[in-house]
Amino acid sequence: MSHTDTVTIAVDAMGGDNAPEVVLEGVAEALAEDPCIEVLLVGPSEVVEPFASSHAHCIAQPASEVIAMDEHPAEAVRRKKDSSIVVGCRAVKEGRAQGFFSAGSTGACLAGATLVVGRIKGVQRPALCSVIPSPVAPVVMADIGANADCKPEYLVQFAQMASIYAEKIVGIENPRVALLNIGEEDTKGSQFAQQAFALMKEKVSNFAGNAEGRDIVTAGFDVIVTDGFTGNVVLKTVEGTAKALFGALKNVMTSSLKTKIGALAVKSDLKSLKESISADTYGGAPLLGVKGVCLVGHGSSNATAIKNGVLASAAMVRKDVSGCIAEAVGKR
Amino acid sequence: MSHTDTVTIAVDAMGGDNAPEVVLEGVAEALAEDPCIEVLLVGPSEVVEPFASSHAHCIAQPASEVIAMDEHPAEAVRRKKDSSIVVGCRAVKEGRAQGFFSAGSTGACLAGATLVVGRIKGVQRPALCSVIPSPVAPVVMADIGANADCKPEYLVQFAQMASIYAEKIVGIENPRVALLNIGEEDTKGSQFAQQAFALMKEKVSNFAGNAEGRDIVTAGFDVIVTDGFTGNVVLKTVEGTAKALFGALKNVMTSSLKTKIGALAVKSDLKSLKESISADTYGGAPLLGVKGVCLVGHGSSNATAIKNGVLASAAMVRKDVSGCIAEAVGKR
Repeated sequence: MSHTDTVTIAVDAMGGDNAPEVVLEGVAEALAEDPCIEVLLVGPSEVVEPFASSHAHCIAQPASEVIAMDEHPAEAVRRKKDSSIVVGCRAVKEGRAQGFFSAGSTGACLAGATLVVGRIKGVQRPALCSVIPSPVAPVVMADIGANADCKPEYLVQFAQMASIYAEKIVGIENPRVALLNIGEEDTKGSQFAQQAFALMKEKVSNFAGNAEGRDIVTAGFDVIVTDGFTGNVVLKTVEGTAKALFGALKNVMTSSLKTKIGALAVKSDLKSLKESISADTYGGAPLLGVKGVCLVGHGSSNATAIKNGVLASAAMVRKDVSGCIAEAVGKR
Repeated sequence: MSHTDTVTIAVDAMGGDNAPEVVLEGVAEALAEDPCIEVLLVGPSEVVEPFASSHAHCIAQPASEVIAMDEHPAEAVRRKKDSSIVVGCRAVKEGRAQGFFSAGSTGACLAGATLVVGRIKGVQRPALCSVIPSPVAPVVMADIGANADCKPEYLVQFAQMASIYAEKIVGIENPRVALLNIGEEDTKGSQFAQQAFALMKEKVSNFAGNAEGRDIVTAGFDVIVTDGFTGNVVLKTVEGTAKALFGALKNVMTSSLKTKIGALAVKSDLKSLKESISADTYGGAPLLGVKGVCLVGHGSSNATAIKNGVLASAAMVRKDVSGCIAEAVGKR
């Protein structure tokens, strides 16, 4: 598929803390930026129809229900068959859209993508993947929360799928894959990590060894795989630490007249640094291993993050990430 | 024990990347700072004897062997009976010292403390504990690496032991304890985390719920417990993220004449911030749950960190942390 073929992305109008306003704003920006994207806007008629009729390349897809952030994901997906998440996933399943993007409940999106769209044949567990905000270089991590409990063999596929995402979307050629562990040597780590190490050494051609927590943001490796529990904790730890440090930095810089004047001189460069490590750059976390594309944005997404999410979903369709995963996993 | 009673700390002269020079320097500083500390300096005669004869309150304790950082910990402890780590632990076991401090192999120190000094009766697994470098307030975390594989019930004792350390040494009254998890709700997390949650809710009186990765450095909780695999990854992630951000900040501040001038105005405040989140402040990671005191410093410790480690070990002896743990665990 070339960049000029039209790609249809189903977008959950009701996903995120500031839906639907921020979502509509972001969709409008995405449509304006890429004329080869068509958006299937999923949500209550009164929200999606007026917007679709006033925007080119936008089709309204009514869905009467909404899954809230605090609902039990799998249960809500089974029960609310006319929710924006389920209807959006169904559009992908039926081929009316090639990708689905939502800034709503991550769990419900995962459940929707797995139960409605379905796994790629041969994939044991789809993995949620994210680019770690590093000031050095992008680092792709999987799983960041789809599978709190993993078997060591799942990590082999996480490595293969995340490597394809790193190459196709993040633009890292021949990514070096590491296993997140608590020591550099083969024999270090929990029983789980030791078993995963042996399997990865045998089966993952671009496996480069163990990475420790301190190696994540330094970008010594391009792809880091782990179970969904550790991955989720680590991603949030990186985000939390960066946020706390920028907060402390702000306090330092506004503590006196002298520092305020100094801060003025570095303000714009600091802002660039802060933006460079923003999680919003890659538009959300893709669920790798499902048919079609499913991308989940932060609940706190602003319009720019929503726009990036729609564009990133389209990029994943155009680069045929799912097809490449199907081929790679089928090969084994 | 009052602050004026003399406390004897066995110090591993051969521990750390820059041993013995940096260790001797740090010991000299500690002895100068606190006249009620006596150091039993453990290492090769030619290192410890000249130092002891030229410093008051220092006794030489010859030990002919050294355990290297890359040796298998338990094996090395069993084989090298005259190593500085084993001899230092034996001094604690025999009552010739009340505490042991080393900046050497963490694994070997843990093995030495567990095999030679021994666990407190009733403690299932000793836990390695650390103060997380947060710009907001100190947060105590356990386990940070002694037990890569844990049973959920171990975390109950980790919570009790780390709470005592937080109160006695870090000075946090009525510390709020959290379980590290991937969601705030009771039902979130891996099977391990869900089981640990239920046990902690039942058995830990100061349990305050789940903490996510983003809650660690914000100091929303005082004590965070987790298994040693996740704890080790998280601690190193916080350290790595802070280091990378300070590195990026330095690049920003030296990128142009304008930013260099601005940087001058904030330099000293920035340095204070950097020091406030330094891991060296608390002098190392205590192994909680063994008889006597065992504190492990960073391999990269400088003289100040060694000094802090010796002083912190003495503080743990004076506050009778081990006795309080024995009492708390015995009560259950």
